[in-house]
Amino acid sequence: MSRRFRVMIAQSADGLIADAAGGVEWLDRYQEANDHGYGAFIREIDTIVMGRATYEVARHFGAWPYPDQQCLVLSARPLDDPPPRVARTALDVPALGAALREGEGDVWVLGGGRTIRGFLDAGLIDLLELFVVPEILGAGVPLFPPGHAAFSLSFKGALAFPTGIVRLTYQRN
Amino acid sequence: MSRRFRVMIAQSADGLIADAAGGVEWLDRYQEANDHGYGAFIREIDTIVMGRATYEVARHFGAWPYPDQQCLVLSARPLDDPPPRVARTALDVPALGAALREGEGDVWVLGGGRTIRGFLDAGLIDLLELFVVPEILGAGVPLFPPGHAAFSLSFKGALAFPTGIVRLTYQRN
Repeated sequence: MSRRFRVMIAQSADGLIADAAGGVEWLDRYQEANDHGYGAFIREIDTIVMGRATYEVARHFGAWPYPDQQCLVLSARPLDDPPPRVARTALDVPALGAALREGEGDVWVLGGGRTIRGFLDAGLIDLLELFVVPEILGAGVPLFPPGHAAFSLSFKGALAFPTGIVRLTYQRN
Repeated sequence: MSRRFRVMIAQSADGLIADAAGGVEWLDRYQEANDHGYGAFIREIDTIVMGRATYEVARHFGAWPYPDQQCLVLSARPLDDPPPRVARTALDVPALGAALREGEGDVWVLGGGRTIRGFLDAGLIDLLELFVVPEILGAGVPLFPPGHAAFSLSFKGALAFPTGIVRLTYQRN
């Protein structure tokens, strides 16, 4: 099996990825209760791609959360004292996608929304895993900045976890 | 079993209920392919509640689509030549909910977003059926106007249809 480019998103039942303050604390109690397949998922990942803002948040969380993966940060500016196996790339998304296409182990396009959307728009995402969390946030941050093109997905499967989170798996058409 | 208040929503995988122009034509090919349980659903419904704007859209679609249900339109203004079994109510949501609580057959709180949100905020929704459609719209209309309180749901089940639409069923906590 060739390497796959994957996106994993957790969103509320009303389609939001963060609350009105940009926070994701509403996810904490779910993550404490169950790993929702994350352990199995991360073992399939060789390389993680993320935008600069996502990197800066992850960098200041405490211990670097992805020690076992090669991480690439999309940024025009050099990284200040990055963790091991973290590098910056100045490539644009299509060029980065082409450079990463050959290789072993999957690529996780982590975020943020603009990075994910860039890979989707470039037709580079093979697998989209959408975790629908049983919460109505009422107000907050949608996954994508508005104004992008629409496209269809192919549904591949649904898996319900004991927490009430449902994972919906799609391929891009 | 006592009567239930139900909400049924179709939204894209990116959490939108209408495209950027407010249209729902992107749902047409799904509805033509499969009824997604609508026939069974509507037979359980005795009464439909809707807001004025939703009523006006349904009224001008052609034949009135809900001939077998009692329909109540939340509006301060009289209805002009309503179909049979359609009446206006000037009650607010809590009073209407109390008036409808006793009775046979379920109540469908059809929409729009403000009406649904009013019933949710009043704690009157027993069952929320969320149909996740395998489409990324990229831009469009979220279910709820922002600025409402958050709450948790209890997940009750997932059902995948051959079209790739997945129905997620929740109870309000």
